Amino acid sequence: MPIYNAPVADMQFVLHDVLKITETPAPGYQDLDRAFTAAVLEEAGKLSSEVLAPLNLTGDMQGCRLENGVVRTPDGFDRAFAAMREGGWTALDCDPEYGGQGLPYLLHSAVGEMFVSANMAFNMYQGLTHGAYSAIHAHGTEEQKATYLPKLASCEWTGTMNLTEPHAGTDLGLMRTKAEPQADGSYLITGQKIFISAGEHDLADNIIHLVLAKAPGGGEGTKGISLFIVPKFLVNEDGSLGDRNAVTCGKLEEKMGIHGNATCVMNYDGAKGWLLGDLHKGMRAMFTMMNEARLGVGLQGYAQAVVAYQNALAYAKDRLQGRAVSGTTSNGPADPLIVHPDIRRSLMDQKSFVEGARAFTFWGAHLIDRSHRLNDADAEGLVSLLTPVIKGFLTDKGFEMTVAAQQVYGGHGYIEEWGMSQFVRDARIAMIYEGANGIQALDLVGRKLAQDGGRHVMGFFEIVKSFIKDNADNPALEGFLEPLKKASKDLQAAAMFFMQNGMKNPNHALAGSYDFMHLFGHVCLGLMWAQMAKAAQAALDAGEGDVDFLRTKIATGRYYMQRHLPATGMHLARIESGADPVMSLEAADF
Amino acid sequence: MPIYNAPVADMQFVLHDVLKITETPAPGYQDLDRAFTAAVLEEAGKLSSEVLAPLNLTGDMQGCRLENGVVRTPDGFDRAFAAMREGGWTALDCDPEYGGQGLPYLLHSAVGEMFVSANMAFNMYQGLTHGAYSAIHAHGTEEQKATYLPKLASCEWTGTMNLTEPHAGTDLGLMRTKAEPQADGSYLITGQKIFISAGEHDLADNIIHLVLAKAPGGGEGTKGISLFIVPKFLVNEDGSLGDRNAVTCGKLEEKMGIHGNATCVMNYDGAKGWLLGDLHKGMRAMFTMMNEARLGVGLQGYAQAVVAYQNALAYAKDRLQGRAVSGTTSNGPADPLIVHPDIRRSLMDQKSFVEGARAFTFWGAHLIDRSHRLNDADAEGLVSLLTPVIKGFLTDKGFEMTVAAQQVYGGHGYIEEWGMSQFVRDARIAMIYEGANGIQALDLVGRKLAQDGGRHVMGFFEIVKSFIKDNADNPALEGFLEPLKKASKDLQAAAMFFMQNGMKNPNHALAGSYDFMHLFGHVCLGLMWAQMAKAAQAALDAGEGDVDFLRTKIATGRYYMQRHLPATGMHLARIESGADPVMSLEAADF
Repeated sequence: MPIYNAPVADMQFVLHDVLKITETPAPGYQDLDRAFTAAVLEEAGKLSSEVLAPLNLTGDMQGCRLENGVVRTPDGFDRAFAAMREGGWTALDCDPEYGGQGLPYLLHSAVGEMFVSANMAFNMYQGLTHGAYSAIHAHGTEEQKATYLPKLASCEWTGTMNLTEPHAGTDLGLMRTKAEPQADGSYLITGQKIFISAGEHDLADNIIHLVLAKAPGGGEGTKGISLFIVPKFLVNEDGSLGDRNAVTCGKLEEKMGIHGNATCVMNYDGAKGWLLGDLHKGMRAMFTMMNEARLGVGLQGYAQAVVAYQNALAYAKDRLQGRAVSGTTSNGPADPLIVHPDIRRSLMDQKSFVEGARAFTFWGAHLIDRSHRLNDADAEGLVSLLTPVIKGFLTDKGFEMTVAAQQVYGGHGYIEEWGMSQFVRDARIAMIYEGANGIQALDLVGRKLAQDGGRHVMGFFEIVKSFIKDNADNPALEGFLEPLKKASKDLQAAAMFFMQNGMKNPNHALAGSYDFMHLFGHVCLGLMWAQMAKAAQAALDAGEGDVDFLRTKIATGRYYMQRHLPATGMHLARIESGADPVMSLEAADF
Repeated sequence: MPIYNAPVADMQFVLHDVLKITETPAPGYQDLDRAFTAAVLEEAGKLSSEVLAPLNLTGDMQGCRLENGVVRTPDGFDRAFAAMREGGWTALDCDPEYGGQGLPYLLHSAVGEMFVSANMAFNMYQGLTHGAYSAIHAHGTEEQKATYLPKLASCEWTGTMNLTEPHAGTDLGLMRTKAEPQADGSYLITGQKIFISAGEHDLADNIIHLVLAKAPGGGEGTKGISLFIVPKFLVNEDGSLGDRNAVTCGKLEEKMGIHGNATCVMNYDGAKGWLLGDLHKGMRAMFTMMNEARLGVGLQGYAQAVVAYQNALAYAKDRLQGRAVSGTTSNGPADPLIVHPDIRRSLMDQKSFVEGARAFTFWGAHLIDRSHRLNDADAEGLVSLLTPVIKGFLTDKGFEMTVAAQQVYGGHGYIEEWGMSQFVRDARIAMIYEGANGIQALDLVGRKLAQDGGRHVMGFFEIVKSFIKDNADNPALEGFLEPLKKASKDLQAAAMFFMQNGMKNPNHALAGSYDFMHLFGHVCLGLMWAQMAKAAQAALDAGEGDVDFLRTKIATGRYYMQRHLPATGMHLARIESGADPVMSLEAADF
C-alpha cells in the first residue's frame, strides 16, 4: 500500500519564507501566521494520510458502478466524504455569508494539494462542487445564492460542470443541447452531455448541474450559449427537496484512471433549469472561474508527482539491489537503490520538480487572492498569463514524474497492487481535461501574450530582471542567477520570434506554442528556485529553521538550475524553426 | 475499435532503398528481392490487421484468468495462435534443420513489428518462445536440440525465461532458487520466480521453462548461477508428453497493461530440470541472446507508437473541431483537427519518430544478421554498442509518443473503449523489462563505450563522419548534414567528458548515463533520417517509386532534424554538470 506524508514543512517554507504571506494586506490573510497555517496543514495532512490515502488504491480497483440509474462510489468514500464535510474542509475559502470560513484561496490550494495527493478521484467530488459554488457566487441572483451556496459550501449537495457533448469538446460552438424558455421563467433542457465528472453518485442528497445549452435567439456558435442551473432534485421554496428532475446518468465511462470518480454520460430530457447569469453569456459565466479551475488542474498534475515521488523515495531507500560503484555503504547482501547515481538523478528530477511546482502554484493562488481580495489588476493580468503555464506545464511534467517514480520500482511499478501505476493513470487526465494542454499553449500564445498590449508578459520579465539585479551580489545565488538569466533570454527571444513572424503567418507562432509553454514553465520554476534559495539562505543567515532542511532546499534548487534549465535552449531552437517543418506536408501526405 | 494498417511501403523503403539488403552476402539474404519481401510483408500485414488487431482491445479488457491452476487466455487467442503457427510465422528465421525457414532475423523483425503493433500482449507468447529457442539452439546438446527445437520453432510448445525473484531483479546474484543434482544427471529445481511472461496458458501442449538457479559449488553472487530446461510436461524418449512436472503458476499479476499476456508467479517445488550449457555459466548462456531480446523490446516500444500514431492520424483527419487560423478548409461545421498547427506538430513528432526508429531497429537487426551469418566482428561490436540505445531510447520515446497520440483524442483518449489508453499502458512495460532503461544507460556508459578499447564507438563516429563527408555536395541533404554534425559533436563531447572525469570518479559518468543514452539515440535517428533522405532523393532522381511518398520522407526527416536534434545540446549540458548536483544530498536529506 502506498504511503502519503503531508509535506507541511515544505508548504510552510513557501507560504512564510518565500511568499511571506502575512505581509499581504488582503482580507483573510491577517490570521495566517506560522502557527495558524501549521495547525490547518497538520490537520489536513492527518485527514489525507489517515482517511483519504487508504481509500485510494481500493477506490481504483473497485471503481464506480451504475445500477438501475444509481451510481455507487467505492467502499468508504461515503464515510470519508462525511469526515471531510464535518471538518469544514469543503468551505475553507467560501464566503462566510454562506457558511464558509473566508480563508484565502491560497490556503484552500495548499490543503487541496494534500487531498489530491492522497486521493485524486475522491477529491474531485468536492473540487467540482467548489467550481459550481464559485460560478453561482459570481453570477447567481440573491435567491439562487441563498438556495444553493450554503449547501454547496458544505457539500451536502455537490455540483457538476456540463460542457462537452459527443461532437463538441474544445469547440463548444458545435453544441446541440437546447434550452426552451417556459412561461414561469424556467427552461426545459434537452440534450446529452459527456465526460461529466461526479454527474451521479451516492455521496450527497442533491446534485446541482451547471449546464451549457443553446437558448433561442442567441445566434450561431458560442454566442448562443447560456448557462443553466439544473438540480437533480428540484428544490422547494422552504429548501426541502422536491421532485426528481428529468436528468439521468445513461452510462459510466470506463477510463484509464480516476476510477473512484464517476464520469457520466448525462441525459437531459426536458429537465427543468434556471438561467445562471445573463442570457447568451454562458461562455463568459462558465469561464469566469477559469483561472482557478485550471490552476486546480495544474495542482493535480504535480500533486500526483508528489505522492509518487514519496513512494519512489521510500522504495529506493528500502530495496536492496546491486552495489554502489563508489564503494559499499552497507553490510547487507546489497546496497539500497538510492546509492546508484541514475536512481539519484531520477529522484532529484522528481524532487526538484515537485517543490518548484508547488512554489509556482502557490504563487499563482496568491495572485488570485490579490486579484479577488485587493482588486489588484496587475495580479489578475499576471495570473491570467501564468495560468496556462501552470496547467499545461505542471500537468505534462507531473505526469512525466509519476512515470519516473514508477520506473524506480522496476517490474513492481507495473503491478497494480503496488499503486505506482495508479498515480500514472490518474495523473494522465490532468493533461486532457479543463482544456487539453495544446489548448493551453494556444491560449498562452494566441491570447495571453498579447493581452493588454503585452503588459503582463513584460511585467513578468521585469520581475525576473529585478530579481537578478537585486540579488547580483548574493553569494548564495551563485549557480542560480546565470542560468535564470540565460533561460529568461531564451523566453524573450521566443516571444520576439512570435512577434516578428506571427504577423506574417500566425502558424509561425502556433507551431511553436507548445514549446513556448514549456520554455515558460522552466523559466517560472527557475525563478521559483532562485527565490527559494534566497529565502533558505536568509533563514540560515538568521539562524532560523532547520539547517539540513534549508541546505537541502538550496542543493535541490541548484540541481534544477543545472539539469533542467538547459531545456530552454532546445525549446527556443524548435520555436525558431518556425511553421515550415511543421506544416510542410499536405494532410493527404501523412 | 482502433485500426491497424501494415506499413509495407515504409518497410520496403528501409529494406531496399536504405539498407539495400540484396547486396548483403549473407546466407538467407539472396532471396530478399523487393517482390519477395513485399509478399511476406503483405501476408504478415493481413494476419496482423485481420486476425491479431481485432483481438487487441478485447484481450486487454478480458485479460487472463487463473482457475484451478489453469490459465485461460482471452477469447480468440487460441485461434489466432493456431493461425500464426499454421502460417509458419513463428519459424521464419529458425534453423531449417529444426523446421525453420532460415530467413534473416531482419525479416523476422520487420514482421515482428507488425505483430507487436497489432497485438503486443498476444505476440509475447511467440516472442518468449523464440528466445527459448535461441538459447537452446546456442547452448543445447544435440539431444536437447532435437527434442525441443522443432516444437519451439513451430510453437506447438512455447517457452519462458525465468530470472527474477521477489528480492532479486536487476541484481541476480541475490537469487535463491536452488538446483540439486540427481544421480541420473538431472536436477531438482526449487524456488519461486516472478514476472514470468507466458508462464502458464492454454495456447500450447507444453511449456519449456528456462530457469536460472544456483547449483552447488559455484560460489557467491552470479558466479554460482546455472541455466536449466524445466518442461511443464516431461518429454518421453519418443517425444510424447509424460508426467506433469512440479512447476505451477501460483498467481497471475494484475498489471497496468499487456493484460492479454499471462504474467505468472511460478513455483518450482523440486521440479525436474536439465542443465542447459555449462554448469555455473548460466548468466552467460542466458545473455547470449541479449542483443536480440533487447532489440525486440526496443521494437515493442516504437511498434506501439506506430499503431497509436495511425489512430491519432485517422482521428485528426476525421474529428471536426475548431477552425483553421489560416483560413477555413472545409464547408462543414468545423475543420478537422489536422489543420491546427499544434496537432500537426504532435503528428509530425510521432511520424518522424516512428519512421526513424524503424530504420534504426532494422539497421540493428541487419547488424545482428551480419554478425551471426557472416561472423562480422565489427557488426557484432557495433550492435552491442547500439543495443542499449535501441532498447532504452526507443522504448522511452515510443511510450512518449503513445501518450502524444492519446492526447490527440482529447477526452476520448482517456476512455478505454477508444483503445488509445491501451497503447500507452502496453508500451509502458517496454521501458521496464529486459533490463530497466536505467540499466541500459549503465550498460551503455559503464560497459559498451569502453568495450574493445572504445573501438566500436569510434567506428560509429566514423560512420557519421564519412556520411557527412561523402554527401557534402548533395543538395538534397541541406538541412540534414549540419544538424547531424552538431549533434554528433555533442555526443563526442559527452563521451570525452566521461573519459576525462569518469576516471577520477565514476559517478561523473554514471550521473550522465541516462542523458547520454538519449543523446546517442537522437544522433542515431538523425543519421537514419539523413540516410533516408539521401535514399529518397536518389529514388526521385532515378524516377523510381512514388513521388509523394519520397517527398514526404524528406520533409518528415527535415522535421526531425530541425525539431528533435536540438535536444542533444540540452543533454550535453546536463551531462557536463557532472555528478555534483546529482549526488550532493545525503540519502537522509531527501
